[in-house]
Amino acid sequence: MPALTSDIRGVVPIAPTPFLDDGRIDDASLDRMTDFFVGAEVDGITILGQLGEAPKLDHAEGVAIAQRVIGRTRLPVVVGVSAPGFAAMRSLAREVMDLGAAGVMIAPPNTLRTDDQIVGYYRNAVEAIGPDVPFILQDYPLTFSVQMTPAVIRRIVLENESCVMLKHEDWPGLEKITALRGFERDGSMRHIAILVGNGGLFLDFEVERGADGANTGYAFPEMLVDVVKLNAAGRRDEAHDLFDAHLPYLRYEQQQGPLGLAVRKYVFKRRGIFTSDAQRKPLMGLTAQAKGEVDYLLSRIARVDPRASLSA
Amino acid sequence: MPALTSDIRGVVPIAPTPFLDDGRIDDASLDRMTDFFVGAEVDGITILGQLGEAPKLDHAEGVAIAQRVIGRTRLPVVVGVSAPGFAAMRSLAREVMDLGAAGVMIAPPNTLRTDDQIVGYYRNAVEAIGPDVPFILQDYPLTFSVQMTPAVIRRIVLENESCVMLKHEDWPGLEKITALRGFERDGSMRHIAILVGNGGLFLDFEVERGADGANTGYAFPEMLVDVVKLNAAGRRDEAHDLFDAHLPYLRYEQQQGPLGLAVRKYVFKRRGIFTSDAQRKPLMGLTAQAKGEVDYLLSRIARVDPRASLSA
Amino acid sequence: MPALTSDIRGVVPIAPTPFLDDGRIDDASLDRMTDFFVGAEVDGITILGQLGEAPKLDHAEGVAIAQRVIGRTRLPVVVGVSAPGFAAMRSLAREVMDLGAAGVMIAPPNTLRTDDQIVGYYRNAVEAIGPDVPFILQDYPLTFSVQMTPAVIRRIVLENESCVMLKHEDWPGLEKITALRGFERDGSMRHIAILVGNGGLFLDFEVERGADGANTGYAFPEMLVDVVKLNAAGRRDEAHDLFDAHLPYLRYEQQQGPLGLAVRKYVFKRRGIFTSDAQRKPLMGLTAQAKGEVDYLLSRIARVDPRASLSA
Amino acid sequence: MPALTSDIRGVVPIAPTPFLDDGRIDDASLDRMTDFFVGAEVDGITILGQLGEAPKLDHAEGVAIAQRVIGRTRLPVVVGVSAPGFAAMRSLAREVMDLGAAGVMIAPPNTLRTDDQIVGYYRNAVEAIGPDVPFILQDYPLTFSVQMTPAVIRRIVLENESCVMLKHEDWPGLEKITALRGFERDGSMRHIAILVGNGGLFLDFEVERGADGANTGYAFPEMLVDVVKLNAAGRRDEAHDLFDAHLPYLRYEQQQGPLGLAVRKYVFKRRGIFTSDAQRKPLMGLTAQAKGEVDYLLSRIARVDPRASLSA
Repeated sequence: MPALTSDIRGVVPIAPTPFLDDGRIDDASLDRMTDFFVGAEVDGITILGQLGEAPKLDHAEGVAIAQRVIGRTRLPVVVGVSAPGFAAMRSLAREVMDLGAAGVMIAPPNTLRTDDQIVGYYRNAVEAIGPDVPFILQDYPLTFSVQMTPAVIRRIVLENESCVMLKHEDWPGLEKITALRGFERDGSMRHIAILVGNGGLFLDFEVERGADGANTGYAFPEMLVDVVKLNAAGRRDEAHDLFDAHLPYLRYEQQQGPLGLAVRKYVFKRRGIFTSDAQRKPLMGLTAQAKGEVDYLLSRIARVDPRASLSA
Repeated sequence: MPALTSDIRGVVPIAPTPFLDDGRIDDASLDRMTDFFVGAEVDGITILGQLGEAPKLDHAEGVAIAQRVIGRTRLPVVVGVSAPGFAAMRSLAREVMDLGAAGVMIAPPNTLRTDDQIVGYYRNAVEAIGPDVPFILQDYPLTFSVQMTPAVIRRIVLENESCVMLKHEDWPGLEKITALRGFERDGSMRHIAILVGNGGLFLDFEVERGADGANTGYAFPEMLVDVVKLNAAGRRDEAHDLFDAHLPYLRYEQQQGPLGLAVRKYVFKRRGIFTSDAQRKPLMGLTAQAKGEVDYLLSRIARVDPRASLSA
Repeated sequence: MPALTSDIRGVVPIAPTPFLDDGRIDDASLDRMTDFFVGAEVDGITILGQLGEAPKLDHAEGVAIAQRVIGRTRLPVVVGVSAPGFAAMRSLAREVMDLGAAGVMIAPPNTLRTDDQIVGYYRNAVEAIGPDVPFILQDYPLTFSVQMTPAVIRRIVLENESCVMLKHEDWPGLEKITALRGFERDGSMRHIAILVGNGGLFLDFEVERGADGANTGYAFPEMLVDVVKLNAAGRRDEAHDLFDAHLPYLRYEQQQGPLGLAVRKYVFKRRGIFTSDAQRKPLMGLTAQAKGEVDYLLSRIARVDPRASLSA
Repeated sequence: MPALTSDIRGVVPIAPTPFLDDGRIDDASLDRMTDFFVGAEVDGITILGQLGEAPKLDHAEGVAIAQRVIGRTRLPVVVGVSAPGFAAMRSLAREVMDLGAAGVMIAPPNTLRTDDQIVGYYRNAVEAIGPDVPFILQDYPLTFSVQMTPAVIRRIVLENESCVMLKHEDWPGLEKITALRGFERDGSMRHIAILVGNGGLFLDFEVERGADGANTGYAFPEMLVDVVKLNAAGRRDEAHDLFDAHLPYLRYEQQQGPLGLAVRKYVFKRRGIFTSDAQRKPLMGLTAQAKGEVDYLLSRIARVDPRASLSA
């Protein structure tokens, strides 16, 4: 399977992990999800991220999920290997790369503060997983409390050849994309892929600023694919029209923490992809009122985009 | 001037503070803003909040602003008196109440952690400003890093008769409104007003959950007023239609920190309310690209809501 | 092997993990350390704690260390099972209990804020590891940023029969011990063991306040044993005299983070217990100047306590 | 009055603020404290610091204290001007400099994270107070949650001629002093004074590493003065002997937050300097048991250093 490179573009969904109601991993739903992503014409799949409830899985479960997804698709599969220490990170990274993963994603621990601590952390991480493993740098201050300036990202990119992509989810973040693309233009940093997260909340402008696509868990990846394509084709107003039709629900889904995940799993269940919307603990279930709000929002999207129509 | 009570409803904008390009306070713009709010049919005005750059003003400047706004309108004026210590809080609170303020707003310092610390803080604050001064409890974890459960809010309300309103900007926050209204229904908490913040990002559903209105700085308070009214009239779809037309821009404006404020000031300048969009340091100016994005978003709103049409 | 109960008293050292210079686990040193602790007449051993660099070990390594230490001593062995998620916590806890561990220790994740979040976390943890596994509640705000009031600790103790001990390392913390012992006296909380951490920095007064001993990694556990005994025998001045002789070095060793650990490992090497003072990354080596400072401090202790004499 | 320069050496106590039992400022005690410091042969006085409960004073109170202390001594008086915004910082700085202060001290707000944010903050602060006002950079991560590397401190020193001193209270912090003195030796940074804080907990080694003295609130500044002098005279063992005699109490006093301050005020009262040990809210009183512990510790110091003898 080909390795992830800085040429990756388009949409790489962050996959949730399907559980049965009793908490066991739901392999049938995992397969349906993989097939669904292929059908949505995405450009890769990221598994075992924060959204994938990776910290709630034990090592063997994580590996089993990776093996199953990798075995079912020819799309590049990226595996989140963030861990409290480098030994566990190394174990998981080597194991999933042997299974055919295209690369790994590494989030910073929430104790990092100074620029040097951040740069040093990624230096140690690369030494742990090996310099031959392509990795995605995750920049998500809202969740991880780690603030990386564009200059710090540049230092990490320059130090580590294997850093091929930024998962960009700083907020506000538009000027950061512009700054990084400026570094490429002025020759001070080699090109890396930039795919955006944050549920896609600013995707409409992020692609205009130079992002290559999205790496996020929005429950309608088809919309993300279309927006990226419309933007690439210079059809600005159409890109915004489609995006704006989804935005009221997208905003609702993008609520932080277990609630946002509960919304996504609920919609994956409504779409027939997941058998159950169960989360492992700590979890937050959706109230009936919240489900009604989601249904209402989807019915409003469906006036414009029929893919959001849910059968009762 | 009448004191703020728990019957307050509708829209109470959080006012930015207008500066001249040299950093001095711009009295003419302050007057225009006050008149603009009156014209927008809001139900009160909050000044010297976080968004009002209150920490960047010295004591005398804060008092002068309060005096000017209070003197120009019969609307209730609420004054932010958050301070690093109770002596400064007391000074400002007593001074502005003497000038005719309707009440004060108090945000928690970002060092509070345990439930008891939070409850104790408000007990001390009330002792400092006096139990006769109506106050608004600000619950904004994203900015203040203080997490208040519904039960903690209830303790504060029960302990302090002068707590008349919650400025609700937790995120996710819909279930919190439902929980607090549940406390009222089950008789375990007296009624308080709940007005929402967060730029209005969830206003459409928050009013459906029981919020009484909005207490936020969105640059088109007229829209907030209309959504609250449409909801009260049971015209749900119309409320959402109007809200959704504004949401792409509202989301852009609601970016955290000095950027969001820069957007609002830019729009206030475009709307002819402010002479300058200057901020005091630390500041973030808008790039030309960002201004273009704002202009594009407003032009899209204007297709539906002509109030967003800006003259060149 | 008998299970840990709330009757545990005395000194239970937190064991560092010995590595060879190339980063592999050093079994010979592990055995010497186990024998050393037995010889020092301690009352148990805690392994795989924060100080034991547990997050830097992978699962198999952690289990192997537990098996080796448990197999070499009849002392109760407590195993740290703190993990980013409950699945990994459960795996490790069940595995080491099957190997004969006396109980486990659980630290809170640094994202917990409200009282309910903390109590809920331990409820979920107990559900994950099973209610039959005795556990130690670790209260260490300085490192974990989680603040537990005495009332929150009481809630956890009352909810979970299997909570048998508090590892107390709040700072300041003397009044917390007094408050918890007061809960026992007034009948509002059953008795639990309280053993103190923080390198023993306040052990002299903590035992006077009602602590049952120490659960910390000070490099001379013999001193901790003697202070606990002298205090129990009512020989207050002698207890303080011995403690004070060690305090200048103890304070030096108790510096936070990898530096404090480096000091301890250096002294364990000087004492002939460890072959190497290597840490896994991220690490901090001791400079020659720091080593000189440690040597100087130990030579000063040795004037009073010959056990601190190090052969060149 | 002469301005503070980078030649400052010795001991500059951080002064607590004396209150009467009813919370008003106690001028008589303030005068006694000033005279006491002069008698202790210190080299300056810092007022309105964190320990001085500065955030609990209103502007006028702070200025009045500064005026009184400056008017009573020819020692250089440094005034803490840390504030939530630059306008208040500027007001206070200009006012106290006009009154004859020797310089100001500025702590970073606890929201700063990246290197550039920290450097930018001090650039803005200097612009606000004016480049002619000598200032002390306070580096106290334990309290302020801001982590400054030696390289960041160097950037601040190089950018701002008026930065004349570092109040060093990082922990662990010995290597930081060595690093900064190394910058001076290799010519990459001009000389600044380094005076240490943290209650003096590492003063014995910090002066050996190159610190110029102490800038902290230990209740026996005479001891700090002696240790600095003994070290300067090359009498290492004597310096440590005196320091170690105080250390058990010093450690007790150095407990973080309002408790440590309560201990200091209690001792200032016992020493006849303060009439009352009252704090303003939020406060923590000393229990009878804690007072007994302090008395016991002082009686033990008094066996070696009669200055710690307290009359009943």
